[in-house]
Amino acid sequence: MKKVVLAYSGGLDTTFCAIHLSKDKGYEVHAVLVNTGGFSEEELKTIEDRASKLGVASFKVLDVTKTYYEEVIKYLIFGNVLKNQTYPLSVSAERILQAKSLAEYAKSIGAKAVAHGSTGAGNDQVRFDMIFQTILPEAEIITPIRDLKLSREEEIDYLKKHGVSMNFEKAAYSINKGIWGTSVGGKETLTSHQTLPEDAFPTQISKTDREEITLAFNNGELTGVNGTSYDNPVDAILKVQELAGPFGIGRDIHVGDTIIGIKGRVGFEAAAPLIIIKAHQLLEKHTLTKWQSFWKNQLSEFYGNHLHEGHYLDPVMRNLEAFLADTQKFVSGDVRVALMPYRFSLIGIQSDHDLMSSKFGSYGEMNKGYTAEDVKGFTRILGNQTAIFHKVNQTLENE
Amino acid sequence: MKKVVLAYSGGLDTTFCAIHLSKDKGYEVHAVLVNTGGFSEEELKTIEDRASKLGVASFKVLDVTKTYYEEVIKYLIFGNVLKNQTYPLSVSAERILQAKSLAEYAKSIGAKAVAHGSTGAGNDQVRFDMIFQTILPEAEIITPIRDLKLSREEEIDYLKKHGVSMNFEKAAYSINKGIWGTSVGGKETLTSHQTLPEDAFPTQISKTDREEITLAFNNGELTGVNGTSYDNPVDAILKVQELAGPFGIGRDIHVGDTIIGIKGRVGFEAAAPLIIIKAHQLLEKHTLTKWQSFWKNQLSEFYGNHLHEGHYLDPVMRNLEAFLADTQKFVSGDVRVALMPYRFSLIGIQSDHDLMSSKFGSYGEMNKGYTAEDVKGFTRILGNQTAIFHKVNQTLENE
Amino acid sequence: MKKVVLAYSGGLDTTFCAIHLSKDKGYEVHAVLVNTGGFSEEELKTIEDRASKLGVASFKVLDVTKTYYEEVIKYLIFGNVLKNQTYPLSVSAERILQAKSLAEYAKSIGAKAVAHGSTGAGNDQVRFDMIFQTILPEAEIITPIRDLKLSREEEIDYLKKHGVSMNFEKAAYSINKGIWGTSVGGKETLTSHQTLPEDAFPTQISKTDREEITLAFNNGELTGVNGTSYDNPVDAILKVQELAGPFGIGRDIHVGDTIIGIKGRVGFEAAAPLIIIKAHQLLEKHTLTKWQSFWKNQLSEFYGNHLHEGHYLDPVMRNLEAFLADTQKFVSGDVRVALMPYRFSLIGIQSDHDLMSSKFGSYGEMNKGYTAEDVKGFTRILGNQTAIFHKVNQTLENE
Amino acid sequence: MKKVVLAYSGGLDTTFCAIHLSKDKGYEVHAVLVNTGGFSEEELKTIEDRASKLGVASFKVLDVTKTYYEEVIKYLIFGNVLKNQTYPLSVSAERILQAKSLAEYAKSIGAKAVAHGSTGAGNDQVRFDMIFQTILPEAEIITPIRDLKLSREEEIDYLKKHGVSMNFEKAAYSINKGIWGTSVGGKETLTSHQTLPEDAFPTQISKTDREEITLAFNNGELTGVNGTSYDNPVDAILKVQELAGPFGIGRDIHVGDTIIGIKGRVGFEAAAPLIIIKAHQLLEKHTLTKWQSFWKNQLSEFYGNHLHEGHYLDPVMRNLEAFLADTQKFVSGDVRVALMPYRFSLIGIQSDHDLMSSKFGSYGEMNKGYTAEDVKGFTRILGNQTAIFHKVNQTLENE
Repeated sequence: MKKVVLAYSGGLDTTFCAIHLSKDKGYEVHAVLVNTGGFSEEELKTIEDRASKLGVASFKVLDVTKTYYEEVIKYLIFGNVLKNQTYPLSVSAERILQAKSLAEYAKSIGAKAVAHGSTGAGNDQVRFDMIFQTILPEAEIITPIRDLKLSREEEIDYLKKHGVSMNFEKAAYSINKGIWGTSVGGKETLTSHQTLPEDAFPTQISKTDREEITLAFNNGELTGVNGTSYDNPVDAILKVQELAGPFGIGRDIHVGDTIIGIKGRVGFEAAAPLIIIKAHQLLEKHTLTKWQSFWKNQLSEFYGNHLHEGHYLDPVMRNLEAFLADTQKFVSGDVRVALMPYRFSLIGIQSDHDLMSSKFGSYGEMNKGYTAEDVKGFTRILGNQTAIFHKVNQTLENE
Repeated sequence: MKKVVLAYSGGLDTTFCAIHLSKDKGYEVHAVLVNTGGFSEEELKTIEDRASKLGVASFKVLDVTKTYYEEVIKYLIFGNVLKNQTYPLSVSAERILQAKSLAEYAKSIGAKAVAHGSTGAGNDQVRFDMIFQTILPEAEIITPIRDLKLSREEEIDYLKKHGVSMNFEKAAYSINKGIWGTSVGGKETLTSHQTLPEDAFPTQISKTDREEITLAFNNGELTGVNGTSYDNPVDAILKVQELAGPFGIGRDIHVGDTIIGIKGRVGFEAAAPLIIIKAHQLLEKHTLTKWQSFWKNQLSEFYGNHLHEGHYLDPVMRNLEAFLADTQKFVSGDVRVALMPYRFSLIGIQSDHDLMSSKFGSYGEMNKGYTAEDVKGFTRILGNQTAIFHKVNQTLENE
Repeated sequence: MKKVVLAYSGGLDTTFCAIHLSKDKGYEVHAVLVNTGGFSEEELKTIEDRASKLGVASFKVLDVTKTYYEEVIKYLIFGNVLKNQTYPLSVSAERILQAKSLAEYAKSIGAKAVAHGSTGAGNDQVRFDMIFQTILPEAEIITPIRDLKLSREEEIDYLKKHGVSMNFEKAAYSINKGIWGTSVGGKETLTSHQTLPEDAFPTQISKTDREEITLAFNNGELTGVNGTSYDNPVDAILKVQELAGPFGIGRDIHVGDTIIGIKGRVGFEAAAPLIIIKAHQLLEKHTLTKWQSFWKNQLSEFYGNHLHEGHYLDPVMRNLEAFLADTQKFVSGDVRVALMPYRFSLIGIQSDHDLMSSKFGSYGEMNKGYTAEDVKGFTRILGNQTAIFHKVNQTLENE
Repeated sequence: MKKVVLAYSGGLDTTFCAIHLSKDKGYEVHAVLVNTGGFSEEELKTIEDRASKLGVASFKVLDVTKTYYEEVIKYLIFGNVLKNQTYPLSVSAERILQAKSLAEYAKSIGAKAVAHGSTGAGNDQVRFDMIFQTILPEAEIITPIRDLKLSREEEIDYLKKHGVSMNFEKAAYSINKGIWGTSVGGKETLTSHQTLPEDAFPTQISKTDREEITLAFNNGELTGVNGTSYDNPVDAILKVQELAGPFGIGRDIHVGDTIIGIKGRVGFEAAAPLIIIKAHQLLEKHTLTKWQSFWKNQLSEFYGNHLHEGHYLDPVMRNLEAFLADTQKFVSGDVRVALMPYRFSLIGIQSDHDLMSSKFGSYGEMNKGYTAEDVKGFTRILGNQTAIFHKVNQTLENE
């Protein structure tokens, strides 16, 4: 019997795939749920129970949160990556890592086929296919939902017929949760002019009083929160989320280009990602030189876009990561952040690597290292070429 | 008698310069206040009255708000320019235009010298000198404050001796006001770890109830607010400021590289600039293609930095403006924005040029223009090179 | 009868298409040869004679050399575009313009289908399809060669059966000729390690004595050669080709990424394009400022790649062209070039806009505009940030 | 007695400095010649003999060719750096390393002053000062030539008076020789319109018959020539120079922006640098992916410019080097090059990492990995956004 590894999430589509592939198609189905931080223990238990009744040969949960951090999130922080200046790539980043983990698992058990439940209408199909065809070039990629083009009702009928009992009600908003943010799609995000209502967001707002927190960074990585150190940066991220989430911080709507060329819009809430990226960025403003900042911004934008579009395995991504990692050598210090309902503000930083160090002159006061005459000379030379340009071309003659 | 045009602001330093240049140095001083929107009629009257007593040959107010918009602000909006992702370049942009206006005025009256009151410690001296040496290559540039290195007390004594009566008390925070934002510097901004207190900001918060406003853009320019059209975009900007300012929106602290190589930190409040830029950017997300957005971001960052550093007259700036202007051809439509205390959120847009138009397929639903098979083929080819790379180099063999 | 516009070149594949579409498929075939400078009058006559016997409803030659120059070549010169630092995009640029001209012609005669003879293995199919689906979104795109996957022998048999007499012998090298260069593909270019033999190149070398020529540029456009002015820049290009071609100048092999992700290799000879681009570039080195050159290079590389990949109609291309055109304002003057067998060298330039003008100081001699003290001050400030960085981080302590 | 380390080259200016600093100024002068490959044993002996008579406390030759390669040249090869598409940065790169070596030597012997013989008119003063002020922030920088502004004749008189006998005749062309190329400045390079005469170049042309050579690269580094391996890449570079130099290959004139804002022009001959860079680049075209090439080009241009302008110690340079080094992982293989009088041509490459490997499909033939249908789907999706853009905006309606 041919082994297939199925990307399983416990939802309607992948439950359909599990039954369809094993019962209709005769595959030995190995259902794998790749957990990037979006599932509680309870949820996983429920999913596992149900999976056992679908005729699959095995069901496995791969907890990849640490790998997710090391291989993806870390660089999104180094690069302060917010797609279109807004979105921390919550879902895009997750899919990449899920696809990669699945492909490696398939290779490890010798499966010659992989399956996913994506439709033919979105980004995820491209991300899964691209990663699979690279890591498993010989494997068959099976996508029942995309190929059969079933309606939701047809899927439900099929599942009922096969004795599956689950909540078949369509949620008003489709939610995708992970450690790097939660996406929220629904009625309003299909239009251009409406915003999501308050109750579309899963987090309940339970804090209203201003709080201050301190984030400690070490070579660009979040290693402490409020004085507590964390060996695993994932725990530090979860701590920030725990503290800031109840304020309703980090909600917004992302509008951008999908891989397939149309525009897409999706809501999200991502308190920890937003706070961590902005705090990290402030620390960088104090510790990097001008051209380090410039090139980091230029390259990070491409890095984020290329990741979003599923090109994670293009070797240029490793090259860019080498650049980003190298910039973080002195990005160490504490950042103080104030949390308030729906917003946060950055108070300031303390760092041994702060280039604003008053030892070397303060802005607005005369500096120990140079004189007013130096600045005059500097300016004369700095403006030399532009001055020559206008003289040669007499562009300012008649103004 | 040698004519000198003095950049006059009515403050301590330039008042000192006016007297010093006319009485001690024997120049025919033409004091010019270049108004970029930071002075009320009353303030101008007071300044004019005082100027007439300083022995200057003439005093003139140049109202350049319209030129400021046409030559600078317009492109800052087209480019969504926020230096270091934060600061709308309020002061930097203003200085450039002031220096340029002064130089042109000096040329028009045949003055062979120009003077400004900058110290030797900041960015402004570089901006003034660079513009002056380009537009007036033969003119002498006189900078008494920078050269004499007087203390505040010495200046005050000098002014008192010359019979000047003005408020000599040092304000707790130095404020620079203009149509593109107000900067706030003081005790806390000289450190890295403190933020400005609420009362450092000049605007009083008087609105607390959520309001919604609609901004109308035409080819990237703000032409209407709440249904009212404005012939002069400056008026539209002032209207947004009037509506949003009382919410305390747009306050933040900018940290960045000064022209002279040290780090600087400055607070600001800039409700209108922030709202207009973010609204404009959202409209662009709906109307520009992926690569238009990418290159706009890359080039705008450089444009903002180069402007900040005083290189406004480098011809590359005109080239970049030609690019930016060309991208705005279809950036037209309405953006709806919600205003709340200390923050705003973008609700959505309506535009005839919205590429998310449902006529051509919606994200997450199958599209009229292509099939699932197309996407499969697309992905196979799109991932071709990366797949070949890994096969050739056997990089994934042992994973 | 359904009208189809067929991209016709007179070769084996498109001759097959003409008969197949009219006789087997019953289309009203309008065969169109888009001439971008690769055909002589004689060749066109021969092709026309043959076309008349293939059962097509009409045959038409569109001479688009002027449009080709105005819409494509001009910007390739402005941008000094050499793909992978080598290839003037001879074929890529031509295909774009051919596809665009065909699509516009199809629209003008109300054809609801367009056909081209590309195989499924190369770049051209993508370029044709992309342009067609944008300009003619409702039209059917017909590609018999790609779809039928016939062997060369099968096509020949088919043509013979239909009474076509033409030279069926396969040339050792496939040649594509146009005003912006001639491509040469064959046995050696299918490998990575061999170069093309001398006789693979169509041009015979008939000049051996060094000659000097002068190219006159006006706002970046070639307007004169050896003292003669040309109203139509196409004629100036042809003149350069006439003078330089017989030296065997401009031969090389391009290796690069195809649109479909594999690497491709193709020989070319392009005397005029190489000489014009390099001469233009030298003139720019004398007339542009540092940052104009920098950004031109960065953007032109993308422009060339995007064009090569068929994205000519992406509006970002117009934006980049606006930038490029704006940089050419002062790129005017004469460039003197020495021609020798297989190579050329740039002698120098003369231009009223030369920023090396000795009026403003010569390199290596003290300048009128500044003093040695100015340079000292300049350097002190210029190196300020790097010096502070190393002090703060004590990176050089133990070296 | 105050120790000063003098950058000594044996020429007129630094010989003057040696005597002036020791005899007139009373310094303990430590003359250091930093050899980056431009001096023969004989030349060094002559210089040493003369130095011993100038009253200096010590004379030392630092042979830094290996360091020069490891810290600079290696990255110029990785980045295929040719400033303004022409110049291998022969002199600029050398000055940086010389300044750095001198500063480190001064630190090691506890000298509190450093001296160099630059004039106030060129780039070198900026490079020396920038490196010195960063590595030796407390040290005095002494520049007698720049400060005293002596004429050549005054210097000669001074030296004669102090009993120095050397060749005081001014060479027609000033030559600067090093392992990464030889610069040639003189009469013609002070103008824009003339080229250097044949005899201005130091290398005599003694080979006329075509030769082929093979360069072996390993992770981007040149490790073999014609089948011989070299432990020290400097020896491999010298071997290429020995083989190619006598052909007169690699001569050209560089025109570009000096650090001080004026344009400069300098001739050079650099057979080995040109051949190595172009061979390396060809190997990269076969082994890197499209986006690796794109970003390498963009970043390398900045890297070369920033190095040229003396910013070697800006930490962004280390970050860019990390990127460049990471791209070289699979840039290994052999490149075959044909040498001819005044020119060379690249024949082809052989590499295990060649992405053109015929195992994965050849350009122009149908590929094993995908079908014509795949390409159709690919194109449909790839052109999706542009097609939507034109539909929405009806830009093509009336064409």
